[in-house]
Amino acid sequence: MVEIEQLSVAPDGSIHPIPSLAQLHREFEQIRLRAQAYSERSGTVVVVQGLGFVGSAVAAVVSAARDDAGSPRHFVIGVDLATPAAFWKVAKMNAGQVAFASPDPELSALIHEGANVARNLVATAVADSYALADVIVVDLPFDAADRFELSASDIAVRLQPFEAGLRTVAEKMKPDALVLVETTVPVGTCERIVRPLMESVRKSRGIDVPMRLAHAYERVMPGPRYVDSIRRFWRTFAGIDAASASSAREFLSSFIDTSAYPLCELHDTKASELAKVLENSYRAVNIAFIYEWTLFAEEIGVDLFEVVNSIRIRRGTHDNMRFPGFGVGGYCLTKDSLLAQWSATELLDTGVVLQMTLDALRINQEMPLHTRDLLLQLTGGTLAEVPVTIAGVSYIAEVGDTRNSPTEILADALEEMGVALTVSDPCLGRWEERPNVLFLSDFAESVRGARAIVFTVPHRSYTELAADDLLKAAPSLQYVVDAFNVIGDETAEHLRSRGVRVAGVGKGHWRKRGYNR
Amino acid sequence: MVEIEQLSVAPDGSIHPIPSLAQLHREFEQIRLRAQAYSERSGTVVVVQGLGFVGSAVAAVVSAARDDAGSPRHFVIGVDLATPAAFWKVAKMNAGQVAFASPDPELSALIHEGANVARNLVATAVADSYALADVIVVDLPFDAADRFELSASDIAVRLQPFEAGLRTVAEKMKPDALVLVETTVPVGTCERIVRPLMESVRKSRGIDVPMRLAHAYERVMPGPRYVDSIRRFWRTFAGIDAASASSAREFLSSFIDTSAYPLCELHDTKASELAKVLENSYRAVNIAFIYEWTLFAEEIGVDLFEVVNSIRIRRGTHDNMRFPGFGVGGYCLTKDSLLAQWSATELLDTGVVLQMTLDALRINQEMPLHTRDLLLQLTGGTLAEVPVTIAGVSYIAEVGDTRNSPTEILADALEEMGVALTVSDPCLGRWEERPNVLFLSDFAESVRGARAIVFTVPHRSYTELAADDLLKAAPSLQYVVDAFNVIGDETAEHLRSRGVRVAGVGKGHWRKRGYNR
Repeated sequence: MVEIEQLSVAPDGSIHPIPSLAQLHREFEQIRLRAQAYSERSGTVVVVQGLGFVGSAVAAVVSAARDDAGSPRHFVIGVDLATPAAFWKVAKMNAGQVAFASPDPELSALIHEGANVARNLVATAVADSYALADVIVVDLPFDAADRFELSASDIAVRLQPFEAGLRTVAEKMKPDALVLVETTVPVGTCERIVRPLMESVRKSRGIDVPMRLAHAYERVMPGPRYVDSIRRFWRTFAGIDAASASSAREFLSSFIDTSAYPLCELHDTKASELAKVLENSYRAVNIAFIYEWTLFAEEIGVDLFEVVNSIRIRRGTHDNMRFPGFGVGGYCLTKDSLLAQWSATELLDTGVVLQMTLDALRINQEMPLHTRDLLLQLTGGTLAEVPVTIAGVSYIAEVGDTRNSPTEILADALEEMGVALTVSDPCLGRWEERPNVLFLSDFAESVRGARAIVFTVPHRSYTELAADDLLKAAPSLQYVVDAFNVIGDETAEHLRSRGVRVAGVGKGHWRKRGYNR
Repeated sequence: MVEIEQLSVAPDGSIHPIPSLAQLHREFEQIRLRAQAYSERSGTVVVVQGLGFVGSAVAAVVSAARDDAGSPRHFVIGVDLATPAAFWKVAKMNAGQVAFASPDPELSALIHEGANVARNLVATAVADSYALADVIVVDLPFDAADRFELSASDIAVRLQPFEAGLRTVAEKMKPDALVLVETTVPVGTCERIVRPLMESVRKSRGIDVPMRLAHAYERVMPGPRYVDSIRRFWRTFAGIDAASASSAREFLSSFIDTSAYPLCELHDTKASELAKVLENSYRAVNIAFIYEWTLFAEEIGVDLFEVVNSIRIRRGTHDNMRFPGFGVGGYCLTKDSLLAQWSATELLDTGVVLQMTLDALRINQEMPLHTRDLLLQLTGGTLAEVPVTIAGVSYIAEVGDTRNSPTEILADALEEMGVALTVSDPCLGRWEERPNVLFLSDFAESVRGARAIVFTVPHRSYTELAADDLLKAAPSLQYVVDAFNVIGDETAEHLRSRGVRVAGVGKGHWRKRGYNR
């Protein structure tokens, strides 16, 4: 009999009972036996710590690695916590299902294959797993304490979950196992935090062989090329010593297509840690840069999309110029720069302030408020008696990922004004971060009473929306704001011809005409 | 008999007498006859106004355009002023010589061909040329009044040379000639400045046909692909009306390889003007961005070149990340953002402040002072009795272009400290902007007494320098600062082994070792 203590609810609404500790351990015995059998056949046991967007996908990809004979290279154990917030990820993996709805069909195929067919992919909440591992892949969270605190000296980080996870690993691990940190961390974390913490635990266990520790940051993109972003993409890494680097290279080569994407080894883990936060900060700055030019283009009646398109043709120097947009969301671009600054200020005590980088984060946070301002311009300054529907919560098209969505900032601003607000998103069943906002999955239902609609995410169901269908669904529609070039010029023109006032971020040519006919 | 009034001296030291007005006009009569004969054979007469880095090369490329039968499409007249500062450009072109030393052999070939062989390329200082033109290409200067004035409300521009040039054109031009502005201008210039100014002059001449005016900004790069940067590169343009755009398209297609690089037409001239200052501002911001990360990497002992190389592998999103460096020079990147802000503030009165863009210019101006600071770190804080040689004045390798070189900022800072300074550059015979600084073309001679050398430009003669040869040339050498990854790790290591202290911008791994052994 299964003793059920608590329930864990997944974002898709499915309910997963959390077994008792005793039950979890009974199940783990089976895992142990399977792993040991696997080890005896000279395979590697890999434990992935943390089954979030990165860890769950990495576990699947590692389990899919095959040797020349076509046999799995690794037995993979995914580990997450037996808590209501986390256990559903364990349950999903064991059922052979993806944790997060994904537009990449390859991901669900790999998880099904690993869990149900090859049976070399399994998940558990039992920490004794780490004792079985030859390689422990660390995909723990490492977050900023407050993403809106942008003052260099006041930035703080949440070390606890990361340290607690690594302490557990150190308490259980085999002395010569490789610990491969994939988590994006402040520069210096492997040398100054991970190594001393783990070595002290290992010392207390009487382990005196040098520990194997490497940093190999991921570039996972949970879009249509989710699996490829792990398996067929560039990977940078560094070890704390030559043996660690060599182990990391061997492991990474076992599941990454290194013939097409040769590994890039850096000289120390600080360099690898720096590379990750630098590359995401670069992206954040490039997004922020276009904002002030967006305001300029709008003021002078220029279509900035046309202009940016004409510039992006310059390959290698300008083709990554960003388009005008709604803001920045997701787990990484909203916080990696903060980890960098925390490192510069606290961990490595350098006195360096990454000012342009921090300015960019501030600008990106302000951006959604410009969409609010466009809406106010359309309505003549008031939203009293204007029910508003925001179409789009995910921070990226076609993916159900609401982490740090810029829609939060817009919705909060509108709620503060007392606006009657409805929110919709075709990729979501609910809006976890704002349970008190009226959320309706069905777009037509969400706009039925709307006098204003704000399109924030270019989900296909929005970009393909016909103006007539929109007007039928929203018979009271008077105002549309396109925050991210969602509906396009033609639909906007059509709406204007039907008396709707339409504004758009970066669409200066719309404003030039006074937003309508 | 030629009546000589003044002399005009070219950067290479050659001396060109400026003929009298009467003499110039006598010579011009020959040009008029040749142009008219050309017109009668149904060719186009093109006048290029301004023979600087852009105009002189554009004139050469336009003269090289051939029709299907292999005959020149255009008779090209280059026009510049009969002043000591400018006339040498006219004289050089008529002699079939390039105005500016260039690493692109194609440019001198085209000028020789046009001036001496096909004889469809000629230059003059006589403004009556504009009366002959079917197309007038405007390559006049349009500069900021003070490139170090970065406060949005205080930025000023030098309109006078631009307006004076266009007024002359309007006074002389055929009513239906196309005026094609290639100059980088503040957004709105064609509509708000050029058009009203020229139409008022044309009206006073009784011309009432609509004027043909277009903006088609250049992307000339005076490096080894000088000619290709005009002929085989992307070109964006816009006309003030459909007829202007159509004329511009026809003319641009006559000398640009539009099958490989299709023209990009924008909807109005403001968009085209915006595109140019936006694309150069983007570049300036990307250069500035890496500066704060350079300081961070140096502090923590990381080789930022290694890190940036590892990131640039991400094509299309990160491959234009800039390397650590010395600063930004040249005519464009140091002022185009100022033209944009002047437009936002003054010409178009928008209230928009391009703050990140202006911050970038400030950072880029501060950058050379970091090189000074590295030198001071090496010497322990004093440069008393330390003769310093700066190797590199050009703002770009292998090109003799000193306009707004960051070496000015470093040299001024060192002079202010009373340092005994020598400057050298293999691409220059003199340093026009700092005639009071000791300049020696010969590198060995310039470093003979140096205790410190600062390498600022990766000219090949510096990058290929052997440590032993350097030590032989500079027997007193104690300190080297590499401001732009000029000498490389191996030479630096060799110098350190010989007791020289070596620091480098972005070279945190050098600093980690204490700069020497």
